[in-house]
Amino acid sequence: MDINKESLDLHYQLRGKIEVVSRKPIKTREDLSLCYTPGVAEPCRVIAADYEKSFELTRRSNLVAVITDGTAVLGLGDIGPAAGMPVMEGKCALFKEFGGVDAFPLCVDTKDVDKLVETIYLISKSFGGINLEDIAAPRCFEVERRLKELCDIPVFHDDQHGTAIVVAAALLNAIKVTGKTMGKVKIVINGAGAAGLAIGSLLISMGFGNIVMCDINGIICEGDENLNPWQQEISKVSNLNHEKGKLADALKGADIFIGVSRPGLVTAEMVSAMNSGIVLAMANPTPEIMPDEAKKGGAVVVGTGRSDFPNQINNVLVFPGIFKGALAVRAKGITEGMKRRAAYALAALVPEDQLSAENIIPSALDKSVAEAVAKAVADEAIETGYARIK
Amino acid sequence: MDINKESLDLHYQLRGKIEVVSRKPIKTREDLSLCYTPGVAEPCRVIAADYEKSFELTRRSNLVAVITDGTAVLGLGDIGPAAGMPVMEGKCALFKEFGGVDAFPLCVDTKDVDKLVETIYLISKSFGGINLEDIAAPRCFEVERRLKELCDIPVFHDDQHGTAIVVAAALLNAIKVTGKTMGKVKIVINGAGAAGLAIGSLLISMGFGNIVMCDINGIICEGDENLNPWQQEISKVSNLNHEKGKLADALKGADIFIGVSRPGLVTAEMVSAMNSGIVLAMANPTPEIMPDEAKKGGAVVVGTGRSDFPNQINNVLVFPGIFKGALAVRAKGITEGMKRRAAYALAALVPEDQLSAENIIPSALDKSVAEAVAKAVADEAIETGYARIK
Repeated sequence: MDINKESLDLHYQLRGKIEVVSRKPIKTREDLSLCYTPGVAEPCRVIAADYEKSFELTRRSNLVAVITDGTAVLGLGDIGPAAGMPVMEGKCALFKEFGGVDAFPLCVDTKDVDKLVETIYLISKSFGGINLEDIAAPRCFEVERRLKELCDIPVFHDDQHGTAIVVAAALLNAIKVTGKTMGKVKIVINGAGAAGLAIGSLLISMGFGNIVMCDINGIICEGDENLNPWQQEISKVSNLNHEKGKLADALKGADIFIGVSRPGLVTAEMVSAMNSGIVLAMANPTPEIMPDEAKKGGAVVVGTGRSDFPNQINNVLVFPGIFKGALAVRAKGITEGMKRRAAYALAALVPEDQLSAENIIPSALDKSVAEAVAKAVADEAIETGYARIK
Repeated sequence: MDINKESLDLHYQLRGKIEVVSRKPIKTREDLSLCYTPGVAEPCRVIAADYEKSFELTRRSNLVAVITDGTAVLGLGDIGPAAGMPVMEGKCALFKEFGGVDAFPLCVDTKDVDKLVETIYLISKSFGGINLEDIAAPRCFEVERRLKELCDIPVFHDDQHGTAIVVAAALLNAIKVTGKTMGKVKIVINGAGAAGLAIGSLLISMGFGNIVMCDINGIICEGDENLNPWQQEISKVSNLNHEKGKLADALKGADIFIGVSRPGLVTAEMVSAMNSGIVLAMANPTPEIMPDEAKKGGAVVVGTGRSDFPNQINNVLVFPGIFKGALAVRAKGITEGMKRRAAYALAALVPEDQLSAENIIPSALDKSVAEAVAKAVADEAIETGYARIK
């Protein structure tokens, strides 16, 4: 099967993977009077008097914007706003199919951080949540930080936090399978952009152990020149032994490799230097090392981003549930606590007696996952005072 | 029936009148691979190489943004962006139900023209067309003009042009019914805001006759002080006899009254001074004069914006078809010619032998209307070189 051709054909045939439909058939004069003028004036008045009612009387109650500037689309890079839209639409389809959450794709035609932030902020009252997507690092960090301050709805950059949560969940189970000890593992993350830094932060906050970040220049160490402010920040709490060198050096004796970088950067030889390695090679569409190569090198657990190998580490296990939960309680934001709890909830969906090297994470197609993740997020929001509705 | 209460109940029950759904069920690994990664990369690449393909490979092929700043919502005025959303959602539901056009509601939280224009422009590549809605005059004129220059998709302020087209269509038939002569009628338009000015301009361009515009200060006459630039412009081609005075003065001997103003401004006595008057009293939800009162004053044809009287002059007869046609041929814009042709097409939908004082316009519920209006718009676009697809 030529997946590219087949996908292109499907896209020509569908002319859009999502569609906006009316929730109420409009056939009679009464329908028209109730859904449109004159009846519609009443919900308008109610919201004008009480802004919070907009979360009950309009679709923002269940609606997420999936927004990109088209600068870091899949592995394709900066392909522009219009070209990024097939991914955004796909994501919106997944939001609905897996989480029952309405999601609408938007591309913003600017690379200026101020304009991007302002544009998204100014339309944010149309939505119940904002999922940022495929925005290049390090710009994405500032965009997210500023929008979280400005908006009264949750803002979540999925490339960062969705990835971090699913990786954390997979590792929680991979550690069990391999008999490694939480808090004592050495984890090498290759790629210190949006996904890598978020994975690093979350794993550190969960107490996994010593995280060693690498980027194209090799191991990131506190005091290195050429680190951006976000890399500097994580350098203070990672690489506790101040290792220097290249990825291959970092991997010596490491328990876990996490790749959010580029195809082919890891060899079987590098894996063989690891300590009964857990290898999550998630470069898209071709992993840092193919599973059979990793196994040859002695990897005990291998995961990728792909659906054609075991242990698919896919954000779709996370974002529908995150927003489903946040919308249900009108959460003020997505906190670190919610992310940790979502990771534990996701990991727990694989029953202990079914855990194995080839089964550390639920199937990306398991539609019961979103509900469990949503419950974790909503519970955490309620318990920590982040829920506006209980 | 308490329409307000019933509508509010319906809105609480629906929690949004529109919904975003997936056009392709995602159940298998193959579905996931085709709609999302890795397959989705291919349509992204194709659009990156040829921008026009975004109109085939994503939903912008059939998608309109319905955008407001919440400053002139129905007769409620400036109630803010979130409070305007029930109207926008209602409009989107009508787009889909009547035209098969996907429409998505957005509110923009600014009253600054520059910011409003920039925000809409920056997200415009997500859509196939932009329907501006309920933006206060005179700001709406500049917003529309600038967006038409900036965007590569049609921009249409429905409060202006949708209203103008449906009024023109109604008048084409009302003139036939009353035996009046095109080009020889005196038409008084009360309300010189967004709708009034657009109606005036379109009727003038169609050669209806002498248009006399009135606003809160009375008849608009060339050279008047206090006219805004748009009123000044129309004053040069309207009120050909340079009448001065109040609305009541203007109506003396007039053939047609068009009200886009406020309830109760017209009395039976004023109608009785007209020349076998055609009265289109469209203030919402209460007309400038109730139909029975207008009849008492001798009106021959009466229309309102309401569904509970004959001759409902409702934009829903226009906007779904306008965009359906424009999207079908990827029109460069909505021209004056398309508006005129749409008006003629809409009027022609009432067969000659069914024309009467109580039947000058198709029912707002007639779902065959959009197709006819769309054909008129598409044909005009093709014939005048405004169609990118033929």
